[in-house]
Amino acid sequence: MERLSNRANSKIKLAASVRDSAKARRSNGCFFIEGARLCSDAAQSGVEFVRAFFTDEALEKYPDYVRQITSRCDECYVVTQEISLKLSDTQNPQGIFCVCKSKISVADADIIKGNGKYILLERVQDPSNLGAIVRTAEALGLDGVIVSGGCDIYNPKALRASMGSLLRLPVYGSSDLVGFLKSVSNRGMITLASTPDSSCAKINEIDLKGGVVCVVGNEGNGVTRETCEACTMRVTIPMSGRAESLNASTAAAILMWEMMRR
Amino acid sequence: MERLSNRANSKIKLAASVRDSAKARRSNGCFFIEGARLCSDAAQSGVEFVRAFFTDEALEKYPDYVRQITSRCDECYVVTQEISLKLSDTQNPQGIFCVCKSKISVADADIIKGNGKYILLERVQDPSNLGAIVRTAEALGLDGVIVSGGCDIYNPKALRASMGSLLRLPVYGSSDLVGFLKSVSNRGMITLASTPDSSCAKINEIDLKGGVVCVVGNEGNGVTRETCEACTMRVTIPMSGRAESLNASTAAAILMWEMMRR
Repeated sequence: MERLSNRANSKIKLAASVRDSAKARRSNGCFFIEGARLCSDAAQSGVEFVRAFFTDEALEKYPDYVRQITSRCDECYVVTQEISLKLSDTQNPQGIFCVCKSKISVADADIIKGNGKYILLERVQDPSNLGAIVRTAEALGLDGVIVSGGCDIYNPKALRASMGSLLRLPVYGSSDLVGFLKSVSNRGMITLASTPDSSCAKINEIDLKGGVVCVVGNEGNGVTRETCEACTMRVTIPMSGRAESLNASTAAAILMWEMMRR
Repeated sequence: MERLSNRANSKIKLAASVRDSAKARRSNGCFFIEGARLCSDAAQSGVEFVRAFFTDEALEKYPDYVRQITSRCDECYVVTQEISLKLSDTQNPQGIFCVCKSKISVADADIIKGNGKYILLERVQDPSNLGAIVRTAEALGLDGVIVSGGCDIYNPKALRASMGSLLRLPVYGSSDLVGFLKSVSNRGMITLASTPDSSCAKINEIDLKGGVVCVVGNEGNGVTRETCEACTMRVTIPMSGRAESLNASTAAAILMWEMMRR
């Protein structure tokens, strides 16, 4: 493996730049991940690697994880402790870093399963919420997640919070949300806009058999009006306590649980 | 209001010490909160104040919040910006800090409502999980939370994550968990131990009418064996996706939702 020791090396600079900036991720078509577990999860989930960086310590300490990564990645480098600290978001880095190719499919009525269950995140801003929601979606067995605006799915904090679920579960992007909702609705799926409005239909009182897309909105402002109007129905989680008190990822968890509950 | 400008003042040192240390909170019988909203929430929820600290900027910027606090607190001080930075956990403090008296009731079969719904946290370590669970408990209308070991309820991160719910909802402590579970069970309450074991009874398939205490365990190790054995029943959240993937606060949210769902 070739050694890199210069912090200003262009490959190191690119890795740090796609780690920090959604714009750099988009323009370079790649994203950054860190850690033995997350990088080997990525290898197993079929993500395409651009390059990988390991410290000498990591090669020694995590041989099994390293092997999984190198078997799928043609361009691997050994880096210094100094570079490891530059690349890492943590204080005690494990010394394993990868740059991978982004691959977001566009949400389209033809790709989505007509009888599937999907959660759709409209402008969800907080990477921890995004990651936690996708983690729960995978655990409960949803068919996929659709992301429209807000935090991008390759945000390092979101990837970490998702425990790798963002790399395993089908995740789609959508820039024409109203058009997408109308087209899946035309194909017979129920489309739900979730709101804290207690006068709406209760999520546990409606028929959720068949295909469902449920929209969760931005943490502060909820689902936008135009998206609400494009949905079949507005739904709410009935609360007997203080209203507006569920955070976005908890509300999404209860909505997904109801979608999957038999 | 008296002015304090010495960072080494004993009142400032005590505040910082109960902020940082569970041991100091226990031995002094008090806890620390920060921020205009949380401190005024505490004032409204009937917490007893020891003393409050405000910067000049805070007195000017948050007069309504300050009034709610000073109306309930006899010992108030104006502090310098330097002290504010010493006391604060955040980079841009609002300049409002209070020390309040701890008041944890012991969980006891006589205090608990026999037909109430309670979530019991056994050795939950992460303050964000503790806070998030109590926030959800209040939103969904549970009757209270019982905490046994793990992170203490006056941990500043837990208080913040709970959005003040920890100060409003009845929260009880328990040091004799097995004894408590047996005595409420003798009074006719159902006691549930939650586990990821998919062979257990499904939470959505059992009768949860009447009084219920549901135990959520430590993030890594789950509910202890002796607590499981003291419960009426072990329950699980059925998952069709990858197992063991719900985090503690998400699992607790789904369990509480099922307890309250009609």
